[in-house]
Amino acid sequence: MSARFITFEGGEGSGKSTQIALLSARLKQASIDHLLTREPGGAPAADLIRALLVTGDTGRWDGVSEALLHFAARREHLLHAVWPALAAGRWVVCDRFADSTMAYQGHGHGLGRAPIEQLYRIAVGDFRPDLTLILDIDPAVGLRRAAGRHGDEDRYERMDMAFHVRLREGFRAIAQAEPARCRLIDANRPREAVAADIWRAVAGAFSLPA
Amino acid sequence: MSARFITFEGGEGSGKSTQIALLSARLKQASIDHLLTREPGGAPAADLIRALLVTGDTGRWDGVSEALLHFAARREHLLHAVWPALAAGRWVVCDRFADSTMAYQGHGHGLGRAPIEQLYRIAVGDFRPDLTLILDIDPAVGLRRAAGRHGDEDRYERMDMAFHVRLREGFRAIAQAEPARCRLIDANRPREAVAADIWRAVAGAFSLPA
Repeated sequence: MSARFITFEGGEGSGKSTQIALLSARLKQASIDHLLTREPGGAPAADLIRALLVTGDTGRWDGVSEALLHFAARREHLLHAVWPALAAGRWVVCDRFADSTMAYQGHGHGLGRAPIEQLYRIAVGDFRPDLTLILDIDPAVGLRRAAGRHGDEDRYERMDMAFHVRLREGFRAIAQAEPARCRLIDANRPREAVAADIWRAVAGAFSLPA
Repeated sequence: MSARFITFEGGEGSGKSTQIALLSARLKQASIDHLLTREPGGAPAADLIRALLVTGDTGRWDGVSEALLHFAARREHLLHAVWPALAAGRWVVCDRFADSTMAYQGHGHGLGRAPIEQLYRIAVGDFRPDLTLILDIDPAVGLRRAAGRHGDEDRYERMDMAFHVRLREGFRAIAQAEPARCRLIDANRPREAVAADIWRAVAGAFSLPA
């Protein structure tokens, strides 16, 4: 079976980390060797860029600059982590990928689709995730969840509610535009119900035993 | 007289810093208020990116990633330094601009013109320098000069001679492709002779008294 590239997308507090851990456990049960990784970051040079992006003032970067930085980090992540893993036959499960740039910078910051698509072609080429799971959640609920956790990597969380509403609409638009690659998962439910939907999507897409 | 944006370009050790200082003195004599700045950097957020680009291993970044980082830094520099100065009526003299990305990443690293031109449109738009002075020098001479100076910002200098030869060819191709904007200046001469050519170019382009 060829290696697969699976990405998780969704707004702040949508439960990606939890669901990735649950999917990883199911993949292990199925004896599928896989790399868990995340963006921005996932490789040493990309982590340097991550540090610039996820901390500091919410207005620290212009939206265009942000998109350029995200794609620079993505390129390093692909070259030094994702592509080598896939070439070695390992599956890759990634917390955020280019759909986040489309949602956050394209929709949230209002850059639109065209520049994000051009940057994708320059930095990524024709490569695409085999399956993208978009966790859909009411931003008010997600931000409440997110507020309960962690340290200083909260620059995006601190953006205003209108930004997070545009973000959600962005992710839903992506799911609608690319139904063959994307599954929109209702994340306003208990985590077991969400995990069951995700496993059904993965098993269905790659003909694994349910 | 409307504010002008003048850029200096050229390989390592081509004498840009010296010539910029000499031009600045002439502009002061002519009572032309101006900002001296440089790329990558020139604004706080852009300087953070500069630190990633100009230090460390020569193979630290893939050429595509490098081009993305340079344009992210450039965008911040334009937004927070260059455009505000021009809007306030000050001239801007900049040590390196987008032609360096075309020469270093497009030619030196072999990315080609198309992705650099696309990134330019995304990050910079229709804005262009009013005049670009390209200091042309034999790379062997320039690298000998550059070796005599400074500390740790030498990542590009340490690239191999073939890289620097492609770089020079890149700058010469740019000068040939855009003769209205660019002047190719022979920098293999005493600095006074180079400075005289530069002042002739500036005074001619903007109808200043020679």
